Amino acid sequence: MVVAGLARERGYTINALSLDYGQRHKTELLAASHIAKRLKVKRHIILRVDLSAFGGSTLTGEGSIPKAGVTADIPVTYVPARNLVFLSLALAWAEAIETRDIFIGVNALDYSGYPDCRPEFIRSFTATAKLGTRKGLEGKEFIIHAPLQDLNKGQIVSECMRLSLDPQDSWSCYDPQTLNQACGLCDSCRLRKKGFAEADVTDPTDYAC
Amino acid sequence: MVVAGLARERGYTINALSLDYGQRHKTELLAASHIAKRLKVKRHIILRVDLSAFGGSTLTGEGSIPKAGVTADIPVTYVPARNLVFLSLALAWAEAIETRDIFIGVNALDYSGYPDCRPEFIRSFTATAKLGTRKGLEGKEFIIHAPLQDLNKGQIVSECMRLSLDPQDSWSCYDPQTLNQACGLCDSCRLRKKGFAEADVTDPTDYAC
Repeated sequence: MVVAGLARERGYTINALSLDYGQRHKTELLAASHIAKRLKVKRHIILRVDLSAFGGSTLTGEGSIPKAGVTADIPVTYVPARNLVFLSLALAWAEAIETRDIFIGVNALDYSGYPDCRPEFIRSFTATAKLGTRKGLEGKEFIIHAPLQDLNKGQIVSECMRLSLDPQDSWSCYDPQTLNQACGLCDSCRLRKKGFAEADVTDPTDYAC
Repeated sequence: MVVAGLARERGYTINALSLDYGQRHKTELLAASHIAKRLKVKRHIILRVDLSAFGGSTLTGEGSIPKAGVTADIPVTYVPARNLVFLSLALAWAEAIETRDIFIGVNALDYSGYPDCRPEFIRSFTATAKLGTRKGLEGKEFIIHAPLQDLNKGQIVSECMRLSLDPQDSWSCYDPQTLNQACGLCDSCRLRKKGFAEADVTDPTDYAC
């Protein structure tokens, strides 16, 4: 949501892509639809690509979401090559509609250590995108914007407020208790809580604990 | 089919991935299922990822497939970022099942000039794969095998025969006339015909012309 708000602020027409990839927190897709309407995006595609067919993650599978707190290790919620799949699909759409700018909300400061959130991955993807597309062959560059890359969660919440976005519209929790209630204990909830606390903004989220 | 045969010959256990990406020649998915059974692959996943939602190609859209012959330009059958999407999904599965070897049937000799068939693209993808995955972060390398990369179509047909595979099991045509009849005029049919002629093997394909 904050990334879309920043793109809008910078004058971009927004085509929004959400992925229905078998995540257990499909609530985020409802939130994405709501945000897309609020921000009056030109088009919002929710594309189905069932990564749960491959397994390898509790985020798309049957295991338990860790609740003990963020650790230094890559957690079991890591979805193999997820952001590479996401960016490749975004690139496919970008090339099809002849745009060069792709925005993604990765963050490499307050995050769970996922490899595909790091700047070096984004840089390498940009090079591969140039080599693997017709536009690239014609000498055009794709630009992957990751405006949240170097912000901490508090700064992201502050950006949300500055852009007059409603933080209640966004969804973070990996393990929703109901359609509208977050668990309050998964990494994603913990980082969200931390962000509101750091920004000194009242957290409107309904947490189970 | 030939790539799978080569992987089997080299002693690999095969997990086969086919993409139902909105291509008009879905016949190739029936062929893939048949080949998967014949080659006794461990698992065959046909994953739906509807690239026709993005547009940008006659292969997934409503326009006409060119029939006038292979030219030096990238044709309208180019699907934006298709092989990058395919390889990213294959990588996701490979990482999930903890394998490092990925095979793809790209060819950069007798082909339609698609940028995502070139060796430099495959090399760049390999680097991105290392940076964007947990296995990569742990120091493991993924290997993208493209054993047909430098073969001409005649050599590919010869490999097919050497491996005792039935060429009738494979499908090339972009614009099937019926479930079993190829058009005979699209780039893919022309390259296929050329291959059989070069290899001096009788072409068993049913072409409309």
